[in-house]
Amino acid sequence: MNANEKVAIANRYIKAISEGDAETIIAMYADDATMVDPVGTEPRVGIDAIRTLYEQAATMDMKLVSTGPACPADGSVAFPFKMSVPAFGLEADVIDVFEFNDEGKISSMKAYWSKP
Amino acid sequence: MNANEKVAIANRYIKAISEGDAETIIAMYADDATMVDPVGTEPRVGIDAIRTLYEQAATMDMKLVSTGPACPADGSVAFPFKMSVPAFGLEADVIDVFEFNDEGKISSMKAYWSKP
Repeated sequence: MNANEKVAIANRYIKAISEGDAETIIAMYADDATMVDPVGTEPRVGIDAIRTLYEQAATMDMKLVSTGPACPADGSVAFPFKMSVPAFGLEADVIDVFEFNDEGKISSMKAYWSKP
Repeated sequence: MNANEKVAIANRYIKAISEGDAETIIAMYADDATMVDPVGTEPRVGIDAIRTLYEQAATMDMKLVSTGPACPADGSVAFPFKMSVPAFGLEADVIDVFEFNDEGKISSMKAYWSKP
């Protein structure tokens, strides 16, 4: 994966979350991926646990807005955004870090933000 | 450590790098810390290796400018900035992730950016 491909995945993620498009997100993940969102909570392991989370998120009218450039590094990308869930009065600045496997799927996701 | 303390460390780091103040940076690290900058390069392990790097950086007139809010999570903080080293024509968008030990020292640092 080159840098542009990693940045494109970050941008596609932001768009798909904001559109409630869980299937696009789930297709980005490896079957054995691990997800920690926010960092400090119990990891979700495997595509079934990850699917459950994103299907819930898709019902919440969650919006993500990029707040700066995505930063691609070796096998990974980190990117900043503002997350809001108006129905819950939730708004937070977040930085997500994805690591990719050899097939270009997300093998690890960590989201850095303070739980309110 | 509360969220404000973690954000303060991120801000102090940006300021100290830009001022060429290696000692302030080194004092933030645990003796057994690991540093990967940029992600994909060989980890630097231990305060001596980390000291060498920052003492070199302090001679390079490196400037960091925050490009968005620092995001504190459990035991960690992630924060975005623009790095420039005019003498080398180097400019990059970077996201750093610090993890802290129980004493509030940086135990792990990863920097996400594309090597030019």
